[in-house]
Amino acid sequence: MQIDPAKLDITERYKLQIGAIVPRPIAWVSTRSESGVSNLAPFSFFSGIASEPYSLLFCPSNKPDGTEKDTLRNASATGEFVVNIVTEAQAQQMSATAENLPDGESEFDFAGLIEAPSAVVKPPRVAGAPVSFECRTREIVRLAPGMPNGGNVVIGEIVQVHVDDAIIDERRRIDPERLAAVGRMAGLTYCSTRQRVDIPFGAKALDAPAPSFT
Amino acid sequence: MQIDPAKLDITERYKLQIGAIVPRPIAWVSTRSESGVSNLAPFSFFSGIASEPYSLLFCPSNKPDGTEKDTLRNASATGEFVVNIVTEAQAQQMSATAENLPDGESEFDFAGLIEAPSAVVKPPRVAGAPVSFECRTREIVRLAPGMPNGGNVVIGEIVQVHVDDAIIDERRRIDPERLAAVGRMAGLTYCSTRQRVDIPFGAKALDAPAPSFT
Repeated sequence: MQIDPAKLDITERYKLQIGAIVPRPIAWVSTRSESGVSNLAPFSFFSGIASEPYSLLFCPSNKPDGTEKDTLRNASATGEFVVNIVTEAQAQQMSATAENLPDGESEFDFAGLIEAPSAVVKPPRVAGAPVSFECRTREIVRLAPGMPNGGNVVIGEIVQVHVDDAIIDERRRIDPERLAAVGRMAGLTYCSTRQRVDIPFGAKALDAPAPSFT
Repeated sequence: MQIDPAKLDITERYKLQIGAIVPRPIAWVSTRSESGVSNLAPFSFFSGIASEPYSLLFCPSNKPDGTEKDTLRNASATGEFVVNIVTEAQAQQMSATAENLPDGESEFDFAGLIEAPSAVVKPPRVAGAPVSFECRTREIVRLAPGMPNGGNVVIGEIVQVHVDDAIIDERRRIDPERLAAVGRMAGLTYCSTRQRVDIPFGAKALDAPAPSFT
């Protein structure tokens, strides 16, 4: 099937994208408004960028009315945000923070979450998240300012990292089993990171036995 | 554990990022050089952006010597690239295309892959990939030009989508089971998308039974 996206409506385009680009890591982004209200929301259009500068990005679309989401407005106005990593243990609370709350109401309170202090930036971390990246907003690429569902890319420089010692293995690396991160699929669906397999790198991959994903 | 990334070397920073930001979708990016040589390489710093404009991004770092990878040079010079989605069936071949080949040698040939024609852009698709997004380069954000391992963000507008009819369900959506996409973890490790669970959206998540990821 060959599809010209110009002939699809916005919802159809979106479903194609979230159905094909899987599994997606989840950035659970905490910000603070200029008046001091904490905000927390999940974004699965999220990626690391590089080690130099040490950076990551997430993509908060405009709302259907063309205005910017609180997370984008706060990351833009204050220049700070925190990306918390979502695990199986907090997946339900993460989904709850996607709820559209009235202005001035904090998703932390709504989802029964506790704010943990950050070291360098003002927005709090999510207590219980095994990894948090404190970020300073470096650049925001607005692809369709003011347009309904318009795309934005928020690029952040990582200025501090918090890691729960309990997820570190004897080689001083993050153990994926202890981390138990959750990935995003389409619709209401998530996936685990428990079914893992190693594949040799580069030319060696061609000589290896076929990987078993079961 | 609290870590100031300025005190880490580049490898330590990278390992922290790829260990925590999981599971990552894989963009298997095909490009063509100005002289017509096809290139294919996997990138797991990859994300959708939005439906308006219909866009996605991936992040090819500079090489350790500060020069740009072939994929970035081609996407920049020709303004075109294709993102192919990686499944269990092609995971080994995908890893093989990460091999550093001599100039002018195609990863398609090296990994025993077949070029399928694209509809709108010149770079070929990967035959057998169930979804391919043909893209025009819209913007490239170079965060550290000329620097070793410097970060880049390649933003593409999706101009054509190919979807294998065999992965579409009766609701005309991509069936994650039939797609069988593979996610990227740290090191040599990948994860499947077979272990899935639904979590209700927003406030409803708090009243739902705890999700079971086993």
